[in-house]
Amino acid sequence: MRLTAVAPSLALLLALPALRADEGMWTFDNLPLAQLKAAHGFEPTREWLDHLRLASLRFPGGSGSFVSADGLVLTNHHVVRGLVQRLSTRERDLLKDGFVAADRGAELKVPGLELMQLVQAVDITARVAQAPGRTEAEVLRARELESQKAREELRVRTGLTVEIVSLYQGGQTWLYGYRKFTDVRLVVAPELAVARFGGDYDNFTYPRHHLDFALLRVYEQGRPYRPEHHLAWTRGGLKAGDSTFVSGHPGSTSRLWTLSQMRHARDAGTPRQIKTMERRRAALEAFAARGFEARALVGGQIYSLDNGLKATRGYLAGLKDAEGMAQVEAAERRLVAAVAADPRLKAEAGGSWERIEGALRESEALAPETQVVHARSSELLATALNLVRIPAEVAKPEKDRLPEFSDGGLQALRERLIKPRPVPFDAALEVHLLTDGLKEAQEVLGADHPFVKAMLGGATPEAAARKAVEGSRLQDPDEVRRLLDGGAPALAASGDAMIALARILDPFQRDLRTRTEARVEGPLRDHAARIARARFALYGTSTYPDATFTLRFSAGAVAAYPANGTLIQPFTTFHGLMDRFEGWGGTASGLDRDTWRLPARWLARRDTLTLTTPYNFVSTNDIIGGNSGSPVVDKRGELVGLAFDGNLESLPARYYYDGRANRTVSVDARAILEVLAKIYEAPRLVAELTGK
Amino acid sequence: MRLTAVAPSLALLLALPALRADEGMWTFDNLPLAQLKAAHGFEPTREWLDHLRLASLRFPGGSGSFVSADGLVLTNHHVVRGLVQRLSTRERDLLKDGFVAADRGAELKVPGLELMQLVQAVDITARVAQAPGRTEAEVLRARELESQKAREELRVRTGLTVEIVSLYQGGQTWLYGYRKFTDVRLVVAPELAVARFGGDYDNFTYPRHHLDFALLRVYEQGRPYRPEHHLAWTRGGLKAGDSTFVSGHPGSTSRLWTLSQMRHARDAGTPRQIKTMERRRAALEAFAARGFEARALVGGQIYSLDNGLKATRGYLAGLKDAEGMAQVEAAERRLVAAVAADPRLKAEAGGSWERIEGALRESEALAPETQVVHARSSELLATALNLVRIPAEVAKPEKDRLPEFSDGGLQALRERLIKPRPVPFDAALEVHLLTDGLKEAQEVLGADHPFVKAMLGGATPEAAARKAVEGSRLQDPDEVRRLLDGGAPALAASGDAMIALARILDPFQRDLRTRTEARVEGPLRDHAARIARARFALYGTSTYPDATFTLRFSAGAVAAYPANGTLIQPFTTFHGLMDRFEGWGGTASGLDRDTWRLPARWLARRDTLTLTTPYNFVSTNDIIGGNSGSPVVDKRGELVGLAFDGNLESLPARYYYDGRANRTVSVDARAILEVLAKIYEAPRLVAELTGK
Repeated sequence: MRLTAVAPSLALLLALPALRADEGMWTFDNLPLAQLKAAHGFEPTREWLDHLRLASLRFPGGSGSFVSADGLVLTNHHVVRGLVQRLSTRERDLLKDGFVAADRGAELKVPGLELMQLVQAVDITARVAQAPGRTEAEVLRARELESQKAREELRVRTGLTVEIVSLYQGGQTWLYGYRKFTDVRLVVAPELAVARFGGDYDNFTYPRHHLDFALLRVYEQGRPYRPEHHLAWTRGGLKAGDSTFVSGHPGSTSRLWTLSQMRHARDAGTPRQIKTMERRRAALEAFAARGFEARALVGGQIYSLDNGLKATRGYLAGLKDAEGMAQVEAAERRLVAAVAADPRLKAEAGGSWERIEGALRESEALAPETQVVHARSSELLATALNLVRIPAEVAKPEKDRLPEFSDGGLQALRERLIKPRPVPFDAALEVHLLTDGLKEAQEVLGADHPFVKAMLGGATPEAAARKAVEGSRLQDPDEVRRLLDGGAPALAASGDAMIALARILDPFQRDLRTRTEARVEGPLRDHAARIARARFALYGTSTYPDATFTLRFSAGAVAAYPANGTLIQPFTTFHGLMDRFEGWGGTASGLDRDTWRLPARWLARRDTLTLTTPYNFVSTNDIIGGNSGSPVVDKRGELVGLAFDGNLESLPARYYYDGRANRTVSVDARAILEVLAKIYEAPRLVAELTGK
Repeated sequence: MRLTAVAPSLALLLALPALRADEGMWTFDNLPLAQLKAAHGFEPTREWLDHLRLASLRFPGGSGSFVSADGLVLTNHHVVRGLVQRLSTRERDLLKDGFVAADRGAELKVPGLELMQLVQAVDITARVAQAPGRTEAEVLRARELESQKAREELRVRTGLTVEIVSLYQGGQTWLYGYRKFTDVRLVVAPELAVARFGGDYDNFTYPRHHLDFALLRVYEQGRPYRPEHHLAWTRGGLKAGDSTFVSGHPGSTSRLWTLSQMRHARDAGTPRQIKTMERRRAALEAFAARGFEARALVGGQIYSLDNGLKATRGYLAGLKDAEGMAQVEAAERRLVAAVAADPRLKAEAGGSWERIEGALRESEALAPETQVVHARSSELLATALNLVRIPAEVAKPEKDRLPEFSDGGLQALRERLIKPRPVPFDAALEVHLLTDGLKEAQEVLGADHPFVKAMLGGATPEAAARKAVEGSRLQDPDEVRRLLDGGAPALAASGDAMIALARILDPFQRDLRTRTEARVEGPLRDHAARIARARFALYGTSTYPDATFTLRFSAGAVAAYPANGTLIQPFTTFHGLMDRFEGWGGTASGLDRDTWRLPARWLARRDTLTLTTPYNFVSTNDIIGGNSGSPVVDKRGELVGLAFDGNLESLPARYYYDGRANRTVSVDARAILEVLAKIYEAPRLVAELTGK
């Protein structure tokens, strides 16, 4: 285990929370090169880094990479699980039976899947900082508009998909330009039983035995795309202690939160969030129980809720860990002292910690309404609400609109609203979920609350939901386009029942947003930004920004860790898979039917496997959800593994990094070749991946 | 997992802490038959129980059982590890290389090993209760003498080795008569590397891969002993959910302690104990570092300290577990309320909880002296102290003596003092440990403390220790016998330097004992007994007594449990052993050289093993240290496993049982036959064990 920290300058030592050697999700423009050299004896060249960055891809909610000259893309099975499920039919269950394309012609187009490659990153911090304004609010608004203007300029100039990225909680503003790939086809997906062996039980744990990979291929103009950069497959392999580098898209961390924010999350926010997720899961599960098609429709959502629930419980455990929180508290004490010692910073942020505490108290008062006054329980209702609002907002000067209706945001919103549906529409599901949302509102606010009375209009939740869904045509993109193009008159003339419901929701939700903005979000944003500016003034880019689902680099090494009373081995092997299969003795009754089971194809061919082949491994890389599918490379830049999870001990890293037991869990690259050759009998793919 | 509790009567429900189905280390005379029937659908016959009891054996510090008609005895490797080490020479390292007797003639006599078989148990509670006395102290003393008289009577009448056993903290007094076997020979001991695969890291953990078994054979008159009862080896095997029954000797539990005793242990006693053990371990390790012979001499002590340390840390974790302690607190609250509600019990024990708290406070004041004023750091000093005290004590009326010098105790003490040494005497070790003990006294009490000044006599600890050891002949049993037989005159004439040191220690230690007895132990014993009597009056034998290293019966079932974020599999297999071996990738640098390594014999023959064979398993049986080596039998009474450990989650069971994750870890009987056949090539033993 590497715990040696790089010695920063003395001034930093006094103020900066000491970074563990392998702590940090760094942007490619600001890598800790001295730290890399000290901890890993490694000085990557510009070429090495560009190659890794340009081979990296972003999936919806995950990461991936180009791994062959003919555009093969490697990611996790669980990143594309919902898509694989939607490619399944009753006759062809790709989750249960897996999928291996017999040849390129048999590769399956994945509708709606878009992969993003980060090709340009522009720092617009200075430009945005010059935006004028008399009051603080005006300045903030002007900066936002300036960012959107810059984004639009870059989009037009380059044709790239451009996103505004705020780093260091507003310390820096960047434009990230992505090349987008929209023709992506499925090449290999293992059976779900091995891809998620041990199911939700083993999720976030280690020792692990997951074949959590999938291969896809990017096409352009109907032909395999030949990427400029793809990762070469390792010819050797890792051993304990070897350095590992991860390039991927960590989704979100809150390491720069104040202690009071973390305590609020611990005592109120996170427990409430868990309850909400549990309720949503129960509603989806009740729907899935209706049959095969129903489960196919919502199975992906249930998986991701299960994943989210276990993760959120792990975050909560981190917030409840006395030792970890003491670390957070110490870091905050140092920052507060440093701010207090500098008159300028003190004027800027000295009172911000107290103001944040006040805002958190206000958020508790608004919590019941926040929980239910929204359009999240129904996809159609969300669409209707946007349709209702667009003409009203467009009629206002840009600076007075709700932020998502700025000129820059509007275009993206319109595109989103008329995009072909990735999931077939199911009216029964829509009714089911909207009913549950209305019931929840009734339970949380009481039947006599004006919002509840207005939404139900005297009917039961189910009747109200049925009426709105059955009286709506918003599932049809053409109808949505017609209403968008027709503007206020078309909308006024529409008798769509969901539009009618959205008109009821609209004023309640606007009012709640106004109050929330004034009492909670405005002060939180303002004072978090003040603290962030003070921190940035003190520490600058000597540290790394919180995760933002943008491309990051993480360094680490293969390392055992202490857990379950012992040291946990750095690698598992196929022997371990067989042990965990046999160790349940064929009697997993009462458990999920596919938990710790092996597919027939595996049982038939198990004797062909070299069981000592490394299967999964753990390394000290600092990653989080969104990094799933990230390539793991060695110092040569060769692909040695495929990150798919963190261990339980990594979950508190949402709030603070603790290198003693925080581990990234990856599929070993050798295991993928082994199963492609022995189980899936795809020598063609082995040859393509190994460049032979 | 079985968590269904048997419904007790309503009256009990109100007062009795609800027993988990598999909670309890029951005496064979008082088995929870209704509970067995309800939880396991099992009604053992008298014959079934007698057979299991009489096949069971007690080892020094462990358990075992007869497993063949020709007297083969099965126990854990770790129970006889110290003995195996002492049978080793530089040329024949039985720990490293293992041992398999080529034939009966090659079986190795184990010097000093005595096995005990419980053949008679007599309840003398009523007899002892009649012992007369005017004061409470007189009554206690009279009871003690009466017990010892009864023991001596039974010993003379039966020729058995008789022990007084106090159950339910004095609620019952029994005489247990043992048949003793003194000619025991080693037949099979696997290599240490597989017997304790994973070393201290894996100790008390699961999933586990320990081949922790050894076979010995009892001889009588030079011929294999043919026991009336031996356990038949299973012909089938266990599966998850199957019932398992353990017969063995749990050493010690403290489940009937008061909450204040547990809190005192948590905050003061146990942390202090851990420090003392760590100091002792460091002293032994420093000695072992001198070379092969030194390590051979103390290796067993180090092993057992490591084991004890990990266990004690687990006990401490239990004491620190809020949920577990809440359970203890609730049980105590019920008992206190029940006592308060009964005028007679209230008069007896109503004030006892407060008195126990007072005694614990007193014990803290005496703690520094208690830590160092004793003869435990030197074996010779302990012998000398007994020699000095015997004539002085014998001269007093029996009732005024220190308890261990009563007529009954004296005989056992004399025998112990002149028994041939099981370990060769090593003057350097003796000096080393006595030096450390004297240093500790200096550190704890200060150089100016009268005790320290007297013991050192102006010399350094090392010089004082060297003088005492080198000037002593007490390592020679003949010299000890001479001094015992010669009585006070012989002792007075002796110029033995260790006797001289013991004469200095004696008054300090007597004074400390007097104060401790008056302020701590007397009140603790008195009030613990009052509470115990009240509890016994309320609950009787509907519950089970704390462990006393006497034979107990425990029922359970093979069951997974939640840990490390998932469900832990009920069985491991040889695949798991290979996985954990390969998973360290051959690079266990920095760890013990034999940790997670396999011996050459195993690597050469690994391909012969059927890797799917169950290896270790977990069950819900309620056991604790001392149960090591206990047979695990199924409903047919056939040997299905060999208990060798509890998981980490079982350690808090020293204080309270929590069936959710408390598991006994056993070697599967099938694994033993598999390795005897394939690795150790001993078909003769396989045939003997399977009765073929």
